Amino acid sequence: MSNAQRPPSDALPATPSPIRLRLRLHFGDVLKLGPGKADLLEGIRDTGSIAAAGRGMSMSYKRAWSLVEEMNAAFRAPLVHSSRGGAQGGGASLTEMGERVLAHYRRLEEIILQAGQDDIAAIEALLAP
Amino acid sequence: MSNAQRPPSDALPATPSPIRLRLRLHFGDVLKLGPGKADLLEGIRDTGSIAAAGRGMSMSYKRAWSLVEEMNAAFRAPLVHSSRGGAQGGGASLTEMGERVLAHYRRLEEIILQAGQDDIAAIEALLAP
Repeated sequence: MSNAQRPPSDALPATPSPIRLRLRLHFGDVLKLGPGKADLLEGIRDTGSIAAAGRGMSMSYKRAWSLVEEMNAAFRAPLVHSSRGGAQGGGASLTEMGERVLAHYRRLEEIILQAGQDDIAAIEALLAP
Repeated sequence: MSNAQRPPSDALPATPSPIRLRLRLHFGDVLKLGPGKADLLEGIRDTGSIAAAGRGMSMSYKRAWSLVEEMNAAFRAPLVHSSRGGAQGGGASLTEMGERVLAHYRRLEEIILQAGQDDIAAIEALLAP
């Protein structure tokens, strides 16, 4: 979808102060799933490369690989398919499982911003000007 | 409310793996409000002491005071009223503003667990056994 076609976000009312949320889910000792891993998955989907996705987040290649390996091991099937090799570190893409996990996480973020918008706005209204 | 009177939580379906969530809201550069500050407020309300609340979270007295001062400065009125003094560090209580902010934050957590329970359960179902 091009920017021209994109509808205005209705997740939060227009406001001068940028409100960001960070949601991290802890599944026992098995997995922590938060904004870092979600952004990494999205970067891999968008760039086709673990290295490029990590660079876009100022994350080391080693760190990006480590997170991918952690996620791939935690789920029933890998979230990221990669072909190592070459100076570029090979190509990578999200598997169907990766797309599903990312979509569920993003939906949770949307749920907070939409179902929680009254509470978020109430806290904001109590902040010092 | 005593434990005997407490109704069973319906926030998440009964499940053997403990799922915890951590939500942090960033209000521009003014304030980050996450589980640490929320738990500290709750501890102050329950113990009547910043020192005791910090100890219950394995947080240093200095750190607990620093977080309280940060929150008090960020809002239109203090969230914590404290009387310094004595070896025990004086007493402390939540102001009405403190109660309101804490309640909004806890409601946001509940909203995720309730409105987001399908997405959380879907991610959990994809985890390796």
